[in-house]
Amino acid sequence: MNQKMIFHICGQMLLIEAVLLLLPLITALIYGESCALSILTAMLIAVGVGTLMTVLIKPKETVIYSREGFVITALTWLLWSLVGALPFVISGEIPSYVDAFFETVSGFTTTGASILTNVEEMSNGLLFWRSFTHWVGGMGILVMVMAVLPMTTDRSIHIMRAEMPGPIVGKLVPRVRQTAKILYIIYIGLTLFEIIMLLFGGMNLFEACVHAFGTAGTGGFGIRSDSIASYSPYIQWVMTAFMAVFAVNFNIYYLMLMRRFRAVVSSEELWTYIAIVLISVAAIAVNIRPLYESIGETVRYAAFQVMTVISTSGFATTDFNLWPQFSKSLLFLLMFIGGCAGSTAGGLKISRVVMLFKSGRRELKKMLHPRSVTAIRLEGKSIEDSTLSSVGVYFAFYIAIQFAVFLMISFEPYDFETKITSVAACFNNVGPGLGAVGPAGNYAGYTAFSKILLSLSMLFGRLEIYPIIFLLSPSMWLKKR
Amino acid sequence: MNQKMIFHICGQMLLIEAVLLLLPLITALIYGESCALSILTAMLIAVGVGTLMTVLIKPKETVIYSREGFVITALTWLLWSLVGALPFVISGEIPSYVDAFFETVSGFTTTGASILTNVEEMSNGLLFWRSFTHWVGGMGILVMVMAVLPMTTDRSIHIMRAEMPGPIVGKLVPRVRQTAKILYIIYIGLTLFEIIMLLFGGMNLFEACVHAFGTAGTGGFGIRSDSIASYSPYIQWVMTAFMAVFAVNFNIYYLMLMRRFRAVVSSEELWTYIAIVLISVAAIAVNIRPLYESIGETVRYAAFQVMTVISTSGFATTDFNLWPQFSKSLLFLLMFIGGCAGSTAGGLKISRVVMLFKSGRRELKKMLHPRSVTAIRLEGKSIEDSTLSSVGVYFAFYIAIQFAVFLMISFEPYDFETKITSVAACFNNVGPGLGAVGPAGNYAGYTAFSKILLSLSMLFGRLEIYPIIFLLSPSMWLKKR
Repeated sequence: MNQKMIFHICGQMLLIEAVLLLLPLITALIYGESCALSILTAMLIAVGVGTLMTVLIKPKETVIYSREGFVITALTWLLWSLVGALPFVISGEIPSYVDAFFETVSGFTTTGASILTNVEEMSNGLLFWRSFTHWVGGMGILVMVMAVLPMTTDRSIHIMRAEMPGPIVGKLVPRVRQTAKILYIIYIGLTLFEIIMLLFGGMNLFEACVHAFGTAGTGGFGIRSDSIASYSPYIQWVMTAFMAVFAVNFNIYYLMLMRRFRAVVSSEELWTYIAIVLISVAAIAVNIRPLYESIGETVRYAAFQVMTVISTSGFATTDFNLWPQFSKSLLFLLMFIGGCAGSTAGGLKISRVVMLFKSGRRELKKMLHPRSVTAIRLEGKSIEDSTLSSVGVYFAFYIAIQFAVFLMISFEPYDFETKITSVAACFNNVGPGLGAVGPAGNYAGYTAFSKILLSLSMLFGRLEIYPIIFLLSPSMWLKKR
Repeated sequence: MNQKMIFHICGQMLLIEAVLLLLPLITALIYGESCALSILTAMLIAVGVGTLMTVLIKPKETVIYSREGFVITALTWLLWSLVGALPFVISGEIPSYVDAFFETVSGFTTTGASILTNVEEMSNGLLFWRSFTHWVGGMGILVMVMAVLPMTTDRSIHIMRAEMPGPIVGKLVPRVRQTAKILYIIYIGLTLFEIIMLLFGGMNLFEACVHAFGTAGTGGFGIRSDSIASYSPYIQWVMTAFMAVFAVNFNIYYLMLMRRFRAVVSSEELWTYIAIVLISVAAIAVNIRPLYESIGETVRYAAFQVMTVISTSGFATTDFNLWPQFSKSLLFLLMFIGGCAGSTAGGLKISRVVMLFKSGRRELKKMLHPRSVTAIRLEGKSIEDSTLSSVGVYFAFYIAIQFAVFLMISFEPYDFETKITSVAACFNNVGPGLGAVGPAGNYAGYTAFSKILLSLSMLFGRLEIYPIIFLLSPSMWLKKR
């Protein structure tokens, strides 16, 4: 493995994080908050370490392959979280470094799981940074870098593949950099649109930005302990709509820009997604109807909570822990499904669910007619058998890792429901689970060991498993090509 | 579909069940119990319905294919359970028919989940029948029929494939009937051996038979409310050993009889199974050490509970609900793994776990070297890609169905832990779960709706999903070939 090149690139990435820290720094200065100093310190550390890594480690060979792509991606996410946690610790607003690390990983991976017991005490500068990590992590750290900077290598597809969610990473246009740019333009445009809509609802610019970041990245960090519950129905509906928008495959928006509406309308993933959402909202609305006064209110609560879970955002307008068992179980299942591939949402992804379903149907057919050969088609294209088997293997990894983490945190004194939903909510980047980690609770009560494990689960989920396996595998590091 | 042939064969199967009911009838007569009459009534009903089905439905065409094989298997298991439940209801010992059906499905599928709150009140005749269903269901109803009767069709491999557990159904010898015979001879031999060992421990013949049936089928029905807890350590160790024996692939015993010891020693599934058992016993023994006085006692409790769960038997010598969280979670995971393919155990099966693991390793390799082609080998043979993808699809079905059942029973007032382990314990044919359905509890508190759903889950698990899907699919019944 080209280790020098890995550290060299990761050093450059730290420099970029330092630049991003400018935004919370400005926010802190505007509000005249003392946390500005801690953000500045973190920036200097990022610049220092980043410069050292870039200058001291000079790779002779600049070629990288997929193995380096995976490791660069995983390591960048880890380093960004390690450094991104510093402002919280230095300012003393989150005294424990493990807690701050958990919160920052939760931010970048757009999980939105929090260890904060009282979010209102935080300074605006750090609240801005906390939500901004959602926005950066949503579309991908390295995708952003590719969109902005000329990469030193043309092998950047290896990096992009490692960071983009979904079973098939499509390039919208032949050149990777161009694809990254288009994605970010759409992303910025939609975010701005949401900010404007939220401003109309009476939010100030700070609130609107923070909530738009949280929605765009499908993250879920808010600035109030009751999340979105105390905001107006208008704000809640706007956020419901934008959570729905950001959990859609961005290819759809690209196709719309290209006026290829026929391709949009015929998207199987899109229709499956819409169907799952509508059915879930209807089922939950019927189930929770007795709890609320009007039908409008019932639908609003049902729609918001379904969207927040399936888009893996994790905002809340009510404590769904108090809902009837059926609704809770349905939300628990939606956690695993997640949004569309190529969106900012987490989870297994709709397209994988569709492919598993189609593979299942083919298997049934094959049992009856062993010699029959049927190709599986998705979005009008036939899917290669190797892709289908990869989806099956991914699913096995996906379940096995969540089981393993559940086993490892099982010593914690929480109940079964809390622990199993903690793992699912972290791995699928949802945020709140059920029981003690429900919308009204938080992750503060876990031990440092479990917090680190759950942070790792978030990275596993966001980067879709493989980059973290490669990062953690000693044989990768020892191997010379 | 050749519906006439299906009903014709299922009618014959009912006649065979009537013959099997002779054994509990004799037991009841020996003990002079009034339940004899109810068993006799059930026999007459089985004979009556069976004769009607066989005589009235005369198929013109006797050829059957895999679709008929699946449906015959599923329907036979359903009919046997429906009729097998009658003695309990007629005698009044289980007044509710749904309860009796649940208990009988639980018997045939070797689950061992019970709705009985006080098993000591049952008559010996019915206790014998209850445990005998384990023994019959363990190796398979239709495998037994094939071993005993000359089938009217030579397509019996279709039936056998539908009933035998595991990803690859191997015929030991070229002729199916011969294979079925060999399997049953081994099965009877091992059961007799266990009866003798239990007699040495001071059990009477009735007790020894009942417990040997429960162990051989990896079922778990006992005759005391505390299961095996009040029996001597010797009995507990004998049962631990035999649970281990019956969860091994019966091919291993055939190979031993053929003196092909090299093939036995090189069995990957066997070694994986042994490794999982030993590691789990060690981990749990360390975890529960403070609860027991001596190391010997600790190991005995740990070994018994690990074997009872991984062999999916479901006996108990202690209420593992009271164990520390880690041990409980580990047992929960073992439920899903289950025993070896080609054994009487349920669960996902070790060989599937091994194949998923190897597919995962190959996937990692493929990500680094996209053009590399590696064949996966198991037991020295290379596994076809279509088998691997079938295993992946099976796993997806396996998880999806358990999720769906969990969702459907989620309205029950039990806690999350009880409900999720109820589904896992029924689907994987283990029996007791955690919480209210733990070793000290039972399934009596569920509604009739949930009891039927859980019964269906047991059949899904025992027949490995596909037969039940085909049975329940209207398109199968409507289709003319």
